[in-house]
Amino acid sequence: MAEPLPPLDLAEFARRLAALQGGMSRARLDALLLTAPADIAWISGLRTRFWQSPCRAWHVAVPQVGAPVAVIPDIGAAPMRQSWVTDIRSFPAPGADGVAELAATLGAMAPETGAIGLPMGPGTALHMPLAAYRRLTEAVAPRRLVDAGALVSDARAVKSAAETARIRAAARAAGAAFARLPRLAAPGRTVAETGRAVEAAALMAGADWVGYCAAVAGPGGYPDVIAPGGDAPLAPGDVLIVDLGVVVEGYFCDFARNLAIGPPSAAARDGHAALHGAVAAGLAAARPGATAADLHAAMAAALHAAGHRPAGGRFGHGIGLSLTEPPSLMPGDRTVLREGMVLALEPAIELGPGRFMVAEENVVLRESGAVLLTDPADASLMVAG
Amino acid sequence: MAEPLPPLDLAEFARRLAALQGGMSRARLDALLLTAPADIAWISGLRTRFWQSPCRAWHVAVPQVGAPVAVIPDIGAAPMRQSWVTDIRSFPAPGADGVAELAATLGAMAPETGAIGLPMGPGTALHMPLAAYRRLTEAVAPRRLVDAGALVSDARAVKSAAETARIRAAARAAGAAFARLPRLAAPGRTVAETGRAVEAAALMAGADWVGYCAAVAGPGGYPDVIAPGGDAPLAPGDVLIVDLGVVVEGYFCDFARNLAIGPPSAAARDGHAALHGAVAAGLAAARPGATAADLHAAMAAALHAAGHRPAGGRFGHGIGLSLTEPPSLMPGDRTVLREGMVLALEPAIELGPGRFMVAEENVVLRESGAVLLTDPADASLMVAG
Repeated sequence: MAEPLPPLDLAEFARRLAALQGGMSRARLDALLLTAPADIAWISGLRTRFWQSPCRAWHVAVPQVGAPVAVIPDIGAAPMRQSWVTDIRSFPAPGADGVAELAATLGAMAPETGAIGLPMGPGTALHMPLAAYRRLTEAVAPRRLVDAGALVSDARAVKSAAETARIRAAARAAGAAFARLPRLAAPGRTVAETGRAVEAAALMAGADWVGYCAAVAGPGGYPDVIAPGGDAPLAPGDVLIVDLGVVVEGYFCDFARNLAIGPPSAAARDGHAALHGAVAAGLAAARPGATAADLHAAMAAALHAAGHRPAGGRFGHGIGLSLTEPPSLMPGDRTVLREGMVLALEPAIELGPGRFMVAEENVVLRESGAVLLTDPADASLMVAG
Repeated sequence: MAEPLPPLDLAEFARRLAALQGGMSRARLDALLLTAPADIAWISGLRTRFWQSPCRAWHVAVPQVGAPVAVIPDIGAAPMRQSWVTDIRSFPAPGADGVAELAATLGAMAPETGAIGLPMGPGTALHMPLAAYRRLTEAVAPRRLVDAGALVSDARAVKSAAETARIRAAARAAGAAFARLPRLAAPGRTVAETGRAVEAAALMAGADWVGYCAAVAGPGGYPDVIAPGGDAPLAPGDVLIVDLGVVVEGYFCDFARNLAIGPPSAAARDGHAALHGAVAAGLAAARPGATAADLHAAMAAALHAAGHRPAGGRFGHGIGLSLTEPPSLMPGDRTVLREGMVLALEPAIELGPGRFMVAEENVVLRESGAVLLTDPADASLMVAG
């Protein structure tokens, strides 16, 4: 359907492990515990959508030196054997929860005086039951459990060529679906029907799955940007946003397109052009060495200069194996951008009370600046009907 | 596209709240903290796929008497205002994490000598950062934080007519896609392409989204049941399973279909017929008063009687706002089944080393027994090509 993707080979995973273990060494961690689906997929290469089943906890333990160990439910052993991880210790879940095996695994990696890291900070969650975590804490004592959230997100932030190719492939499938949007949306058709048709088009264009789709419409702007498609029919004067998180081999793109139903108002046209200008300002500012906050400032300045009021808390974020990853393009996020980071640039404005408009494109940072992974929206608002 | 679904009205949410608060009263809880997406969707009616963005924690606090309070990121306030929850306290995330607001909310619900429940036990996870949870624990002290996982899953287990109608609608959309499976799968087509085509067909048949799709094939049986579609072409002699979790208004169906590529072996035909018989045995055993373990035993006995070896840890589970919910149809799960529960019956066999076959149907329990929500598979294995 498309050109072959560069393989995710052993060298790729060796580089990921080295990045993680470098961070562990600097943080003086003897072992690291990963439980989040995207963290486990990143270190192992495991591909599954089984995370939708919340009744079993999966764990990967990473030593300071040596290979990762998967401590996972029996049902996961066969797909994990397809990954590069060879040390797989499975337990019969549900029923068993693997805490004893996990404690033994981590205990063998860290001395009693040592430290075991796991993501605990902002943006993280523990993907095992709290009661199981407490038993684990007791079982590995006196080893300390400490936060390693920034360390893990830092290692994941810079994407390899193979990872970027997957995000670009996802963006192409989403782009092919968006190209059909003016024909898929029409007055009288519901927002939900339109969203479904866009999702189906993305699948037929090569998406492995559609992890995220928000579709919202309103007269001259939309009231929010995260609702699924509703049952109200599209009406002339509406502005529709469809925001797609399309997945190829686990990797998300995350970008949105706006569409006017019938001739748009001058305010909607002007808002869309201002957002297009803000994305261009973000593109110009996005280079290694700039901070996440710098990108927000550049996009906000462009919006102010065009006479618009910036809206929302952030103007973009990292993307990868998660729909949204650190950093956040917002005031206060001083993350220094590095070559290889993949970002969504996502400026937003409020055209009137409760009437928003958002633009979004995806880029990869190269030494010379940002390179678009999306076929970008025009400055002029697309029109259906 | 289909008949209108019965509304999820205020009376529906009043009944859910009463079920939860009844459990809280019996457990002597003054307040309850919900952080899991499906728990929040269940108590509030919020519909969004924004959970794919892991960088913000959402919380709903439920008092022993009175209405729930949402403590959520600013970006969620507009969609939450579409729900029946009126007390919405939002915070600017990412950046802020809402712990201060959450502690104040829970502190006002529970006296200092009181207890705050949250799901901590098997099958649960805390959907907020562990570091934030620790600060919350300190901020609400000396109030105790105790496990309420069983209480919440117990309240969610019995589905209303409106909930069951949504699961049935999801099953219809999946069924329409599965009906096309023999034409969508063909020798030479890859498993991944086939899976995508089934997903697109489900969307065009009315699915709001496809939350889960596993597609695996192998000669005479498949090596696992949770992998996404791979790039290997289907070949004569393969047996393909497609397992779909299709969603309508947040509610999942979860069932699978098997397809032989070209004429199946006698063993594959016989295995499929045995699984069909096991589902029938499960259907006959599924009635209020039976236990989850009883259903496993009935299906396992049917497989043994047909000369097959049961495989896997459980033969089904609850379904609803999550792809899989308690109870687990397995030895040791003594959950007594109640009228209104919706279950996936999912017997599995191993036809040879690493060659599995699984059947799956969805049922709702009525006073008189189980009623199918799926248009069931035939005893004879479907054939493509």
